[in-house]
Amino acid sequence: MPTDPIKERVFRALDTFAIEIPSWGFANTGTRFGKYIQAAAATNIEEKFADAAEVHRLTGVTPTLALHVLWDLPNGVADAPKIQALVEKTGIRAGSINPNLFQEAEYKYGSICNPSAEIRAKATAHLLDSVAIGKALGAAEVSMWVSDGSNYPGTQSMRRRIGWMKEALAKTHAALAPGQIMLVEYKPFEPAFYHTDIADWGMALELARSAGPQAKVLVDTGHHYQGTNIEQIVAWLIELNALGGFHFNDRKYADDDLTLGSIDPYQIFRIFHEILFEQSKGGAFKSPAFMIDQSHNLKGKVEAMVQTVVTAQELYAKASLVDQDTLAKLQDSCSLVDAEEAFRGAFWQDVRPLLAEWREARGLPAHPLAALRESRYVERITEERREKNAGGGSSYA
Amino acid sequence: MPTDPIKERVFRALDTFAIEIPSWGFANTGTRFGKYIQAAAATNIEEKFADAAEVHRLTGVTPTLALHVLWDLPNGVADAPKIQALVEKTGIRAGSINPNLFQEAEYKYGSICNPSAEIRAKATAHLLDSVAIGKALGAAEVSMWVSDGSNYPGTQSMRRRIGWMKEALAKTHAALAPGQIMLVEYKPFEPAFYHTDIADWGMALELARSAGPQAKVLVDTGHHYQGTNIEQIVAWLIELNALGGFHFNDRKYADDDLTLGSIDPYQIFRIFHEILFEQSKGGAFKSPAFMIDQSHNLKGKVEAMVQTVVTAQELYAKASLVDQDTLAKLQDSCSLVDAEEAFRGAFWQDVRPLLAEWREARGLPAHPLAALRESRYVERITEERREKNAGGGSSYA
Amino acid sequence: MPTDPIKERVFRALDTFAIEIPSWGFANTGTRFGKYIQAAAATNIEEKFADAAEVHRLTGVTPTLALHVLWDLPNGVADAPKIQALVEKTGIRAGSINPNLFQEAEYKYGSICNPSAEIRAKATAHLLDSVAIGKALGAAEVSMWVSDGSNYPGTQSMRRRIGWMKEALAKTHAALAPGQIMLVEYKPFEPAFYHTDIADWGMALELARSAGPQAKVLVDTGHHYQGTNIEQIVAWLIELNALGGFHFNDRKYADDDLTLGSIDPYQIFRIFHEILFEQSKGGAFKSPAFMIDQSHNLKGKVEAMVQTVVTAQELYAKASLVDQDTLAKLQDSCSLVDAEEAFRGAFWQDVRPLLAEWREARGLPAHPLAALRESRYVERITEERREKNAGGGSSYA
Amino acid sequence: MPTDPIKERVFRALDTFAIEIPSWGFANTGTRFGKYIQAAAATNIEEKFADAAEVHRLTGVTPTLALHVLWDLPNGVADAPKIQALVEKTGIRAGSINPNLFQEAEYKYGSICNPSAEIRAKATAHLLDSVAIGKALGAAEVSMWVSDGSNYPGTQSMRRRIGWMKEALAKTHAALAPGQIMLVEYKPFEPAFYHTDIADWGMALELARSAGPQAKVLVDTGHHYQGTNIEQIVAWLIELNALGGFHFNDRKYADDDLTLGSIDPYQIFRIFHEILFEQSKGGAFKSPAFMIDQSHNLKGKVEAMVQTVVTAQELYAKASLVDQDTLAKLQDSCSLVDAEEAFRGAFWQDVRPLLAEWREARGLPAHPLAALRESRYVERITEERREKNAGGGSSYA
Repeated sequence: MPTDPIKERVFRALDTFAIEIPSWGFANTGTRFGKYIQAAAATNIEEKFADAAEVHRLTGVTPTLALHVLWDLPNGVADAPKIQALVEKTGIRAGSINPNLFQEAEYKYGSICNPSAEIRAKATAHLLDSVAIGKALGAAEVSMWVSDGSNYPGTQSMRRRIGWMKEALAKTHAALAPGQIMLVEYKPFEPAFYHTDIADWGMALELARSAGPQAKVLVDTGHHYQGTNIEQIVAWLIELNALGGFHFNDRKYADDDLTLGSIDPYQIFRIFHEILFEQSKGGAFKSPAFMIDQSHNLKGKVEAMVQTVVTAQELYAKASLVDQDTLAKLQDSCSLVDAEEAFRGAFWQDVRPLLAEWREARGLPAHPLAALRESRYVERITEERREKNAGGGSSYA
Repeated sequence: MPTDPIKERVFRALDTFAIEIPSWGFANTGTRFGKYIQAAAATNIEEKFADAAEVHRLTGVTPTLALHVLWDLPNGVADAPKIQALVEKTGIRAGSINPNLFQEAEYKYGSICNPSAEIRAKATAHLLDSVAIGKALGAAEVSMWVSDGSNYPGTQSMRRRIGWMKEALAKTHAALAPGQIMLVEYKPFEPAFYHTDIADWGMALELARSAGPQAKVLVDTGHHYQGTNIEQIVAWLIELNALGGFHFNDRKYADDDLTLGSIDPYQIFRIFHEILFEQSKGGAFKSPAFMIDQSHNLKGKVEAMVQTVVTAQELYAKASLVDQDTLAKLQDSCSLVDAEEAFRGAFWQDVRPLLAEWREARGLPAHPLAALRESRYVERITEERREKNAGGGSSYA
Repeated sequence: MPTDPIKERVFRALDTFAIEIPSWGFANTGTRFGKYIQAAAATNIEEKFADAAEVHRLTGVTPTLALHVLWDLPNGVADAPKIQALVEKTGIRAGSINPNLFQEAEYKYGSICNPSAEIRAKATAHLLDSVAIGKALGAAEVSMWVSDGSNYPGTQSMRRRIGWMKEALAKTHAALAPGQIMLVEYKPFEPAFYHTDIADWGMALELARSAGPQAKVLVDTGHHYQGTNIEQIVAWLIELNALGGFHFNDRKYADDDLTLGSIDPYQIFRIFHEILFEQSKGGAFKSPAFMIDQSHNLKGKVEAMVQTVVTAQELYAKASLVDQDTLAKLQDSCSLVDAEEAFRGAFWQDVRPLLAEWREARGLPAHPLAALRESRYVERITEERREKNAGGGSSYA
Repeated sequence: MPTDPIKERVFRALDTFAIEIPSWGFANTGTRFGKYIQAAAATNIEEKFADAAEVHRLTGVTPTLALHVLWDLPNGVADAPKIQALVEKTGIRAGSINPNLFQEAEYKYGSICNPSAEIRAKATAHLLDSVAIGKALGAAEVSMWVSDGSNYPGTQSMRRRIGWMKEALAKTHAALAPGQIMLVEYKPFEPAFYHTDIADWGMALELARSAGPQAKVLVDTGHHYQGTNIEQIVAWLIELNALGGFHFNDRKYADDDLTLGSIDPYQIFRIFHEILFEQSKGGAFKSPAFMIDQSHNLKGKVEAMVQTVVTAQELYAKASLVDQDTLAKLQDSCSLVDAEEAFRGAFWQDVRPLLAEWREARGLPAHPLAALRESRYVERITEERREKNAGGGSSYA
């Protein structure tokens, strides 16, 4: 039992912290210059669930797995029973359901924003199928990344596409089960380079509102212009009761999908601070969905996922150490240096020993990465999957 | 009378195009490293009106002058009669009224977002005075640039400041005359460097809506992150009936306040296209206020203003040449190369001869810059103002 | 025969202008989210040569085809005779030879910068083979894009890798034939996200110098940080006699590989101006290699290439209209507005009619894009290649 | 005496760490929108030396004060004896000598790059005077920030200005005393917005080399494009034996001149790591000059300076904890996750207790900020300087 206030605060924060991991985080990924094939990469949904279960066994805070419809349920809702069986087998629940609007050749000029009514109808049907999957699996969120856009000025009407998009999202929202959340993601560029139909949080918010009350905004930390103050956007979305969740990752330049906190850990700390500030007010605030969305191109996949979860916990624990009352007073008196030191003093605390202590108190391995190595899990799956992962290839060649 | 369709289209566009010039565009400006003093710079409101009248005489499309309360009406509404006399003398009308929330020492930690209720009240009073000035002068817009922000993480609560800002803006909105517009400007950074309380169009839109129906968003072309698709934001604001006006200028990196179209003329063309697209639909669309907001640090001020107005007309004329029907068809069929060529073909047209023709048809000098030189206006004001502009100085020294 | 000075100047410029097209510009490309398969895409080197010949037939200024070793000469120098036969058949010469250091799985942690001496040796052997190919085909340039880098701070020693890279480049330089040029390309990020071993022109220049006198810097217009003044880098490289060539394309945010001039045409004009300024001095300046490096993900490939070549010619023709003597005088007297108007007045000239005239005078189709459509070349190759281009796929799935 | 290895390593690092503070860091500064006047700001060189002495008394690691010629020695070398007297009185030595090439009205189009030979001669004379001051005061460095540039394409010849700049720098270098260092600083933009004559490290390096062997490059951490990997530039400059020193500060968007480590502390850690890596090799590496260059617009000036010095020490101490041998092995084996954890594990160590211990062991206050408050130094100077700091003003008004 924690007795000192620091420990108590950290333990309380950690006890309520969970983070969702994505099925595609265990599969082979790459850049446009080629996929990086790893012998231990998961090659099917069974292996993805197995990997997720291993991460949860080691960390204790990843009870759900985000699913990607096209890759994990290629037959749509018909595959739900198969997933349900995996849930029961592994104890890992279905997390957010992620439709795919970018991979089909006919979506090259847009899916729900395509000038063709026929293609828009097909894309909308896929969204409705994703909602149905969510219902079948009891998934809390359907997470909409609309990758539509255009590459050259004048080639598409950004303006007219707004209407088409609203229509599709409204239809999808109408199909939601009570309590099911539709997350609307934004991204300034890529895979389209001149315009993305949902480019920033302002557009995502408008679309969410226009769709209905169960639609909220999803913040992917890699989907911002350089220099953007992401924690301010988070603060605004909380203020507007419109923050649905996060896709966490890090980046140096574009949407690099690096592991959380690997480039700018202080930023993640500041984002968590905004969440914890709202929680400290004691209202009915429902914590947004914390999700990881990364491409472990070079790092070992299970290893990278464990490292990410541990880093997220550490930064969340640090943020929990900010004394909100003291800080508010220093902010009110515009005592800049003292306020800053009160704030980042929490960031400088080395919480790693406390995390080890918390894990042991909760019956978890004190050092998840070390425990992973000891378990020889990666060696085992490498053996099993090596042949399936032979080959490789470039998207250019 | 124009008889060929190209000329007809350009003439029709030019006949409805006007752009507001700012009083501060004639005064000495600089960077934080020092002001650049020019002998011909306007040193008082009379000289600013005189310069504005000269620009209007040469171009015929700048009937209004944006006023800056602190610099042009230092006694607030009490100075309105003096301005009114200048209006009558010069024929230049009072344009948008611009409060100043950044210059007073006590606003260093914020004006309407300051933690101190007393300072917020003072700032709000200044806003109300600005509305009163607008009423007294029949000004169509009160243009709110809230420069508040903070320099260091943790030193201010971005979240709590939202509420204070909403309060002040609502009070200001309540004082508006019917038909008076409150413009809410956004800017990602500078003069504050960590956070600006109104950082992007999403925040400006929320604040405008929260203030009331006469509040609209102001787009300053220099107030965006690198890589932002500004014309898309314009399209969204038109869609949402929330576009109030523009502060035009250009930039290469930050808010450089260079002359419009000097760095990326194609971008301004694309912005004008979105306006003209909406107009082409024949609805009740009220054109947003086109305003110039530039710092002519090195260029001669009257010269730079004339050059800017001419460039704006040229880019507007080019945008008017886009054949909306043809373009829409090519967009619908996803004929990318043809759509792009139809679009930018208009940009490549050399409209300068048509502009000269239009000017002559309207009794204006065919070549405003040349006419300015012939008039020797700049030489005259240089003579008159040289002594007043002696000195100079750095904000660092 | 041109008789007026404008025409004369444009014709003279166009007569010396040629631009190289890349074999991979005719093949299927995509983003990390999936390749965009086009029925008419070239699927082998014969088809690439055929497409290049068609572009040259239509434009008359693309006599060479850049080759990519791994894709076009999979057996290395052993494939040179096959290429030579295509050269003779189509009249298109072998352009720059492009080694591939990014596609092999073992290069995931680096090729010539890999900590493993064995892998570095393999990569160096590939570079030497590329030089041998260049010799066999009489190619003027070997173009080195070293895609090496790392994704996370601390995971590789940026410092120690410099030495390894120098060693490999020196060995490659030593193998060059007299007159053969080694181009060293730079890029700030992608496919590595934390550091790229040759991140900017400064590093490329140091490496080129360290390699030897036949090594020069290659400027890819999409490989710069946002806000970079690329024409200034070009001016410096000319000053230092170190400019080897260009990879032209355009971008809005990252290395988007869009068609040249599609986003910021004024920038390309300014780059051409620096070249033409040096030429106007009448010295021994050898024009750098102009090459296109684009990914025509959505636009038809032959169509996009013709459009690009035409745009390049137009912007080059515009730049040739800058009167260097007049401009220099205005710059010397710091007559800013006049200098700017003299400069960009050239940009505003509509040179399209002059280009049509020049083409006809040179026995070329006046309107290459229209001529392409009339020829029904694309329809023909679509028919021939449709089956080979069935399928498609994502690099994520 | 430290006995455990961690402490030993930190103590050894701290014992060799010193950082120079700038005289202008104690004076009033601001943005282009106005200066922020502080009652306690230093108003003359005596007060700047007094403040510097106080910072050194509290931290023990700031023995030198950077001087700004125009502000601190307005009569040039004639003021050297006055400075020398202050050195003797306070024990603070003269640090780098900073010429001013931006404040004079006649430098508006450039100083040593101005097309006017007369103005270039004047600017060069100022540089020579700065060298003379350096000699008179025994200053190790003359620090050249050439703020020259242009605001609009075409208005100046970037190319021709290179030659003029080389000439002036060569003359200045020729006047250096043996051992005196000329630092060449680079900056991508501001106060000029289209081009800066020394825009990046590549240009600075070329100019330094062209000037002579005593010229080195100065890295200001705020003078980079967004996304730049600064530590890589540092690594290259060390490799090339061309790193002269640093101007430390932090930024979120542009050259914001915020306190070091306030926005991205991990970046400073990585920069220090490159220095310490080179030191660990045991060669003749001379540590570059560490200097602070910040604008304490809102924070109390002495307070901000103490905070900055403490932060710099903490980040340096953290970087000293990286085990270079272990790291090199993990990098060689491409053990990415382990290498990253070995690297940033040092960053996560809370070194604050060790710093307090080191300070006490060296006879310094354990907590410099707290000691500053206890001393009531700021209250005292506020009293003394309040009247001198009355007023204020905007560079816009």
